[in-house]
Amino acid sequence: MSFNHWKCVKSQISFQERFIRVRKDDLLSPAGDVTDYVYLEDVSPGTVIILPISEDLQIPLIKQYRYPIQSIQYNLPGGMMDDGESPLEAAKRELREETGIIATDWKQAGAYHPMSSHHTRTAYFFIAKGLSFTQKELDPYEDIDVEWMSADKAIEHILRHEFNDLELSYAILYAKAQGYLDGEGV
Amino acid sequence: MSFNHWKCVKSQISFQERFIRVRKDDLLSPAGDVTDYVYLEDVSPGTVIILPISEDLQIPLIKQYRYPIQSIQYNLPGGMMDDGESPLEAAKRELREETGIIATDWKQAGAYHPMSSHHTRTAYFFIAKGLSFTQKELDPYEDIDVEWMSADKAIEHILRHEFNDLELSYAILYAKAQGYLDGEGV
Repeated sequence: MSFNHWKCVKSQISFQERFIRVRKDDLLSPAGDVTDYVYLEDVSPGTVIILPISEDLQIPLIKQYRYPIQSIQYNLPGGMMDDGESPLEAAKRELREETGIIATDWKQAGAYHPMSSHHTRTAYFFIAKGLSFTQKELDPYEDIDVEWMSADKAIEHILRHEFNDLELSYAILYAKAQGYLDGEGV
Repeated sequence: MSFNHWKCVKSQISFQERFIRVRKDDLLSPAGDVTDYVYLEDVSPGTVIILPISEDLQIPLIKQYRYPIQSIQYNLPGGMMDDGESPLEAAKRELREETGIIATDWKQAGAYHPMSSHHTRTAYFFIAKGLSFTQKELDPYEDIDVEWMSADKAIEHILRHEFNDLELSYAILYAKAQGYLDGEGV
């Protein structure tokens, strides 16, 4: 169902715990039918995903255990925006905190609504070049490894279906298609 | 937090309504700390996403209103797997139901865990070629338009950030990188 002509007559939070907030809207159709739509509401203003690319086309991948899928996954740096932060400010903060990297050249790589059938989330993608290094600032218990991988090798992994993080695979293929992996600056 | 060395001592469904099921696990660390992890559990065995490509490199995009983001979005055909269905069987069924398309040539395009920090979901991607046409079988109230677009134009939209569905953009860039948009068969 699409519900573009339905009117929301009541909206309430049905569940909220940790990072999961469920909203339920009661909807009224032009013909007078009534139903409800149950969906996730982001607890933050959005998320940011950063693809950092070094001068010699190496990418710092985050390797971390993901509890819901009970396995280790390669991801890109990223995380939730804080209230009042712009996507770019959040991207700079998350990159520094998770990897200790500071980047001088930033370029947008699209904004996406993952799982738009049942989630309000917006994810903002960035390419970061001009990398230099400072100290990581991990949260207590945050247990992530950074593994540098050449862009060429990462693309091989994607084409062989050896990655399983959609955001990582998208960002690298986007950077390739946009020409950011041809050795030129952003 | 990663929790790869934590032991689940209790697991329960905290909330379930429509397509949203929230699970909460109580976790015990090797050091004796206790916490909980709240996450979404897929209500289906997984989802499938299909990128159909015609002989003249046209792609049937689904144009539909997405209630949680209050806007119309371009998507690929796809949907939830039924119990007992393989990903390929589900992909064939969803493609036929949503677009009336039958395809003879199927190729895997990876399996992904979207939002693995708080979702158990697996999404299986397929490229479909050798297209022929039968009747659509939309669910009641299902209100989707199919709009054919050339692969070249779709890639232009991606590079200009004019699409906002990550699965659509990934699949098209994957097909391009894999050589499936060079006019050859799968």
